[in-house]
Amino acid sequence: MPGAVRVPSAGSAMLHEIAPRSGVAFTMEKGQRLTVIDPMGEQVADLLAFSRADTREVISSGRSLDYLSRIFLTVPDPLYSNRSNVLMRIVEDTVGRHDFLLTPCSADTFRIIYGDETPHRGCFGNLAAALEPYGIEPDRIPVAFNVFMNVPVDGTTGELKVLPPLSKAGDRIVLEAETDLIIGLTACSALQSNNGSFKPIHYRVD
Amino acid sequence: MPGAVRVPSAGSAMLHEIAPRSGVAFTMEKGQRLTVIDPMGEQVADLLAFSRADTREVISSGRSLDYLSRIFLTVPDPLYSNRSNVLMRIVEDTVGRHDFLLTPCSADTFRIIYGDETPHRGCFGNLAAALEPYGIEPDRIPVAFNVFMNVPVDGTTGELKVLPPLSKAGDRIVLEAETDLIIGLTACSALQSNNGSFKPIHYRVD
Repeated sequence: MPGAVRVPSAGSAMLHEIAPRSGVAFTMEKGQRLTVIDPMGEQVADLLAFSRADTREVISSGRSLDYLSRIFLTVPDPLYSNRSNVLMRIVEDTVGRHDFLLTPCSADTFRIIYGDETPHRGCFGNLAAALEPYGIEPDRIPVAFNVFMNVPVDGTTGELKVLPPLSKAGDRIVLEAETDLIIGLTACSALQSNNGSFKPIHYRVD
Repeated sequence: MPGAVRVPSAGSAMLHEIAPRSGVAFTMEKGQRLTVIDPMGEQVADLLAFSRADTREVISSGRSLDYLSRIFLTVPDPLYSNRSNVLMRIVEDTVGRHDFLLTPCSADTFRIIYGDETPHRGCFGNLAAALEPYGIEPDRIPVAFNVFMNVPVDGTTGELKVLPPLSKAGDRIVLEAETDLIIGLTACSALQSNNGSFKPIHYRVD
């Protein structure tokens, strides 16, 4: 799997490592569970889920926030698709703070927000490359479910801040697939999202 | 133009009326201005903008909120696309409260949130029908810029509420096109969004 290194695991399912500032894509069957682990703490993983039956169906922040009447998701919240189907459901969560407002960081993000002249391709570029073999074009990448990302909103002014994640080493979230899926997943590339240092992400499917 | 009625106007540009619970699509040239008016007060208009050069490029809530670090947009904020280009810019705004979190209401919205057994097709269905002649498929409809929609967020719990719009009769927002666009625009179909009564929306392009 490009960008992923197999890591020895005590459990039955293989634990994979996503290297800092990289991303992977893989498939899941209905009923399987994806465990995303922050091995060092304060790291973010951008998560996308597309329906394998028709990759034009993808998770939708706008549908999910509308149906849940909440911007912060945790157990047992579903991730709805743009067709209002439940693609995944959060079944375990040791952190309780994730973001569902922002698109994956990209070369443009680093250019616009950080002023980088030779910007990294970011989670967006990593996801686009990882999803390309599945026939998913970059323009189909929506707002991601940004695991462990800590983006509080000031209810009065509407101002949002990207703060260090609340996750500590070993914290995890587990999502169950409600249909066959193609998953995109990253170890986030933006300094602001992970308190200033690039770290790996671990994951497991079982 | 399907769903739009021409309304006499004192100005040079034609004022159009979008009937309650309907929607329209039309083109704009770079530099033109779209004025959206709430003729009776407390009504919402879902706005979409696609690039005419390539309709896979569309406004992106996730990019816009990220670059602006704010969930509430007003003058002189830009609406960024999924490719991080500015498609429109807000140049006048007599209300100052719009939503950029939620997808257009749909038959599924009315089924899931309102429990309707024979639901209306909603703004989503109206936009899909209006955009079909431009070759834009329903799955390409993202989070809309929901003009006049009042969705405050509790910064602590993340809870969001759909409250009556702050717009009064005659209030308006004006957006300038920064490139050639295809616009989708509705008079919103959800009771919750417009304080319980279905009303028209007026607009003008000049």
